Amino acid sequence: MFYNSDTICAVSTPFGQGGIAIIRVSGDDAFAVCDKIFKPYVAQHGQATHGMILGRIFRGDEIIDEALVSSFHAPHSYTGENTVEINCHGSLYIQQEIIRLCLAAGCRMAAAGEFTQRAFINGKIDLSQAEAVGDLIASSSEAAHRLAMQQMRGGISAELAALHDKLLNFASLVELELDFAEEDVEFADRKQLKNLALQIETVIRRLAGSFAAGNAIKNGIPVAIVGETNAGKSTLLNRLLKEERAIVSDIHGTTRDAIEDTVVINGLMFRFIDTAGIRETQDDIERLGIERSFMKIEQASIVLWVIDITKDIHETEKLFAQITNRAKGKKLILTLNKADKLADCEREHNAALFSRFNEDYIVISAKSDADIAALEHKLLETANIPQIGENDVTITNLRHYEALVKALSAIEQVIKGLEECISNDFIAQDIRECIAYLGQITGQQINADDVLGNIFSKFCVGK
Amino acid sequence: MFYNSDTICAVSTPFGQGGIAIIRVSGDDAFAVCDKIFKPYVAQHGQATHGMILGRIFRGDEIIDEALVSSFHAPHSYTGENTVEINCHGSLYIQQEIIRLCLAAGCRMAAAGEFTQRAFINGKIDLSQAEAVGDLIASSSEAAHRLAMQQMRGGISAELAALHDKLLNFASLVELELDFAEEDVEFADRKQLKNLALQIETVIRRLAGSFAAGNAIKNGIPVAIVGETNAGKSTLLNRLLKEERAIVSDIHGTTRDAIEDTVVINGLMFRFIDTAGIRETQDDIERLGIERSFMKIEQASIVLWVIDITKDIHETEKLFAQITNRAKGKKLILTLNKADKLADCEREHNAALFSRFNEDYIVISAKSDADIAALEHKLLETANIPQIGENDVTITNLRHYEALVKALSAIEQVIKGLEECISNDFIAQDIRECIAYLGQITGQQINADDVLGNIFSKFCVGK
Repeated sequence: MFYNSDTICAVSTPFGQGGIAIIRVSGDDAFAVCDKIFKPYVAQHGQATHGMILGRIFRGDEIIDEALVSSFHAPHSYTGENTVEINCHGSLYIQQEIIRLCLAAGCRMAAAGEFTQRAFINGKIDLSQAEAVGDLIASSSEAAHRLAMQQMRGGISAELAALHDKLLNFASLVELELDFAEEDVEFADRKQLKNLALQIETVIRRLAGSFAAGNAIKNGIPVAIVGETNAGKSTLLNRLLKEERAIVSDIHGTTRDAIEDTVVINGLMFRFIDTAGIRETQDDIERLGIERSFMKIEQASIVLWVIDITKDIHETEKLFAQITNRAKGKKLILTLNKADKLADCEREHNAALFSRFNEDYIVISAKSDADIAALEHKLLETANIPQIGENDVTITNLRHYEALVKALSAIEQVIKGLEECISNDFIAQDIRECIAYLGQITGQQINADDVLGNIFSKFCVGK
Repeated sequence: MFYNSDTICAVSTPFGQGGIAIIRVSGDDAFAVCDKIFKPYVAQHGQATHGMILGRIFRGDEIIDEALVSSFHAPHSYTGENTVEINCHGSLYIQQEIIRLCLAAGCRMAAAGEFTQRAFINGKIDLSQAEAVGDLIASSSEAAHRLAMQQMRGGISAELAALHDKLLNFASLVELELDFAEEDVEFADRKQLKNLALQIETVIRRLAGSFAAGNAIKNGIPVAIVGETNAGKSTLLNRLLKEERAIVSDIHGTTRDAIEDTVVINGLMFRFIDTAGIRETQDDIERLGIERSFMKIEQASIVLWVIDITKDIHETEKLFAQITNRAKGKKLILTLNKADKLADCEREHNAALFSRFNEDYIVISAKSDADIAALEHKLLETANIPQIGENDVTITNLRHYEALVKALSAIEQVIKGLEECISNDFIAQDIRECIAYLGQITGQQINADDVLGNIFSKFCVGK
């Protein structure tokens, strides 16, 4: 496996100006680099691990900052290498100068995710845990955070380790028979083997199946807001986002560019996609926007079709076929808006008419807080994301999902082979393949630099 | 003096998402708060000062993050109180949740600058040093950083302490005579006293005098770029800023809004003010822009008058009176632009003509890197900021400057009193007044809450 033990440095705190910033230095020479630029106020005999020392950062004779330096001795550090963390004042100038001093003292700039990559290479964490660190930092909702935390704590790894043991046991039984093939002994009852394979298949299928919910939680549930011009889509979106985001106007066709924003409802993230109003138009630019609205529907998993309840249903009828056609396989919520403009009986009458389009509908006024809350509840209900317990293993990572799908196909081959009484050679090969795919998730079976580089390049620098 | 020893918390790293964030907790209950939300992996017997412990942050039974906690025992902390710093993963969700947990555990949110304010109140630093912390974080050029660093290290405090001793000695001599007034003894020779007062006056005058340069270094040197429409002002500004900032266009009157941006030349910050082109116009909005250009000149200390060298000098003549009138007392640099459009002899001829307006001129082409470098050099030369050594004391803070001006006026009263043989009563009073004003700088003489509140409210939260 590729590995440089050269010493790397980066600012690990968020970009910008603040009270404190942390510059992290990791590698064989971390302490030597620190000694070149940092002088403690009180002379120290070596750097105790996990101790902090107050002193000053020097550029030659000039003091650049007063800083608090913490030292971590290998292997008791995040990366598993000697590591120094310099807590300095958070001015951009100071951050930049200390990085320059580190570079001059022999460091190089860390690549994105390189600290975590080293932690993986040094066996501090497996690959799925390393990926979880990136997810943890990016998580912006409670549910996404919980999934990342569980993955980082090794939830997936533990489940895969159990599978791995079962498969290895399975493989050894099959391979043992191969060794004694000429003697025609049968160590494992075929039926028993098939039961084991079916058990394994069930677990892999469950894991792969959890990706839909896991992905929705991690990346947010995409909701397209569509409807005729002036049905109140932008106002509704603003109310959901609780800020003025789209330009709200009474002029038809105001919202031309599809914009996207996220909101967390009850710990779950929704990505709202506002779209241009759909209507007959001669304006080329606007027609382009309308076509884009239809395309956006395809990216959504929930379609919020906003209808002005005061309008004549016959005008909307034409649109019905168009929208339901595009929204096939999506969850469609009919949102009958502007309810405040009608008297009770009229409102009920119109709602009954419109409900013909779609049985799942809600009558609201975008102006009412209670109605917005009801719509949020409706969205949660429609998203139907299962409550995930602290110990449920859920897949959120596309790479893991793809490996699981391949592992699933391999174990299905095993089952098929057992049913068709295929030679043990082939069965053993399929089992080994299944083990290999599962091993990719935790990184046991990965050694191509480009795969690793691809995984860690999505991290921020400094982690 | 007002002082709450309640426990405060805040995120101390820059706002945003990053690898690591620090949440700082300070006050009597800092350790107790930490114990409520943090469980170390390895049980510890108390928290050793300046030690870091790895463990997990809990919300009830749920793990919110893995975190590294450092403890600082009073008085050996930044604030002088018990302090805990929680290094957590830098997701916004985690930062927010840990703050919530701290608040639930009995902390309150720290006000802006409150950690530093506590450091001052606990005698860890004096007021001018505390203010320097804010300046240090905000400093974005080498020179500004150096001044803030020197102030933080107590450069000003040391100079003021020396003055204070001299003044106190002076006061005691004068006041001793007062005690023996009836006996008509004279402990101090009046001439000697006057010499002492003159020495003190010189020091105070020098300190107050350093404010002009100190302020220019700290806040940047304001440079207004003015000239006729299409003289190439925006292009020139873009070249100085080295990025596309103003909309460059060949259409007259493109730049309507005065925009401002900063650039660091040789460690010194310049604030460039681009202005609307000056010309006769019927467009009301544009005329407003032109008037604003003239007003901007008044805020600048250097005026860069950009002239198209290919133009007829008679067209520019009219503008000459207007600009020189507005630029009175400013440093005016005539920038003869578009030199690349003329042959050598023609260029020299025109330059000679234009130089009649102002003897300080430079011939450039905004397209030439060498010419831009020459203009930068010219700006540095014109700004004429003295090189400030590491041990030169320079005033950068308006509050300090105002206190020095008052102290100067008091010591001048003392000198005048000595010259006019005024009663020692009055002289002693003026000396005490001088001491009081100087004491305001380091905070010895400040105890009004509103003054302190005003000073620290300019800090970021978390410092």
